[in-house]
Amino acid sequence: MTLVSPPDWLKHPVKGIILDIYGVILNSSDNGASLIEGSLQAVEKLKYTSIPIRFCTNESQVPLHKVVELLLSLKLPVQPDEVFSPVPVVLKYIEANQLRPYLVVHDNVRDSFKHIDQSNPNCVVMADAHTSFSYEALNKAFNILLEHPKLITMGYGKYYKSKDRLNLDVGAYSKLLEYACGNVKPTIIGKPSSEYFLTAVNDMNIKPEECLMIGDDIMGDINGAQNSGLRGIQVRTGKYRTCTDEPHAIVTPDSYVDNLLQAVDTILKYHS
Amino acid sequence: MTLVSPPDWLKHPVKGIILDIYGVILNSSDNGASLIEGSLQAVEKLKYTSIPIRFCTNESQVPLHKVVELLLSLKLPVQPDEVFSPVPVVLKYIEANQLRPYLVVHDNVRDSFKHIDQSNPNCVVMADAHTSFSYEALNKAFNILLEHPKLITMGYGKYYKSKDRLNLDVGAYSKLLEYACGNVKPTIIGKPSSEYFLTAVNDMNIKPEECLMIGDDIMGDINGAQNSGLRGIQVRTGKYRTCTDEPHAIVTPDSYVDNLLQAVDTILKYHS
Repeated sequence: MTLVSPPDWLKHPVKGIILDIYGVILNSSDNGASLIEGSLQAVEKLKYTSIPIRFCTNESQVPLHKVVELLLSLKLPVQPDEVFSPVPVVLKYIEANQLRPYLVVHDNVRDSFKHIDQSNPNCVVMADAHTSFSYEALNKAFNILLEHPKLITMGYGKYYKSKDRLNLDVGAYSKLLEYACGNVKPTIIGKPSSEYFLTAVNDMNIKPEECLMIGDDIMGDINGAQNSGLRGIQVRTGKYRTCTDEPHAIVTPDSYVDNLLQAVDTILKYHS
Repeated sequence: MTLVSPPDWLKHPVKGIILDIYGVILNSSDNGASLIEGSLQAVEKLKYTSIPIRFCTNESQVPLHKVVELLLSLKLPVQPDEVFSPVPVVLKYIEANQLRPYLVVHDNVRDSFKHIDQSNPNCVVMADAHTSFSYEALNKAFNILLEHPKLITMGYGKYYKSKDRLNLDVGAYSKLLEYACGNVKPTIIGKPSSEYFLTAVNDMNIKPEECLMIGDDIMGDINGAQNSGLRGIQVRTGKYRTCTDEPHAIVTPDSYVDNLLQAVDTILKYHS
């Protein structure tokens, strides 16, 4: 039992935690990824508790198994079924709705779709496509959407950090197509969609209000989590930018923390 | 004197006409351009009257003199100083404001900027860049805009027609950057900016309400003209699309016409 009363964001019990991966646990770069200082220790500390954790990324440049392999290669104690990424969910959605997608995706994930009929497309599936966000691909997507206004995006991030610069992400490219088409509203698979957060929450057999989301994207992670009934904890790592994110024009995180380790240490301090 | 009373859009005298070029006079294709049926005859008919005309394009893939050369090569009776395109106006603007642009433009127009200091950019200039709308260029523009939120676009079209498909235009790419940056409002040089329309109107020494704009882009041409006090006549050629443009959700042109020749024949029928 602690003598000091917990901060507001820990007054309600924490029975599960969702961690964003890039910007919270890892920094990404064009050459791979590296651990953010203290993040390995933070995950290990959590694993020693009874608090279940899930790793929820919007990473769509690689298939899910590659994300898991990367985490394991960096000695992070994760189980494959604790990791969620949009690609498998999109595949299920496409099959359930009998869609024939035109893919604006990174070459790394094309193979995941090779069993899907892509002839005569009746929808567009867009991910963080990197250099596959080409003029030609976007024009083709645009012309398809004019006939079939069905756009599926893996997440809706504006940008993410890679090395020392920010890269435009799928949400910004979606906005381009939405504006040009006029009548397209994307189906977002990934954060900030509530379905995505609640899939992970349900997987832990807890209620949304018992769950913390720790992320670096104030819209995709924090706002999305709060809109789904979770608490959202903003780290000052990854794509976090002082000038726009603290304070933010529309989102008030339940707390700001310097990094994941600080969040975990604070949580554990008050965890009974 | 005519016995039949003129349609509403001709009840006010017409003392000058602004013609859009692509989609009204010419169809563009990757291999060049061709005359739209009746458009040469229409321009010739106008030239026989006392009504001054100006050709206002948002064409930013080539310098102004190339636009003039193209029109002359197709035997259109134009004077070079009757043709307006955004490139010379942008150059004046950059010089007057001592800006150092990062250019997201078609390779064809880079030479027009070669005398301008482009080191350590403090603004982004974006035109219809065609394949120069690359992932790399857009990321670079985005990172510059985060530090220097000054974006100058040549026009603001959503898309334009080339051969049988529609190509995304500078307005859609601007929207991508505006959304990602959050605090960027573009300075639009070209249609639909009122300054651009009024430059042509003033050049004819007439008042806005005495001027007709004939165009195929219901937002850039028609809405822009009407917001500047001109009448806007929508042709059913070029990028016009029945399903979205007639009727249009927010714009009511002063008239729809099948093509430029029909517009000119109607104007001349009631012109005294």
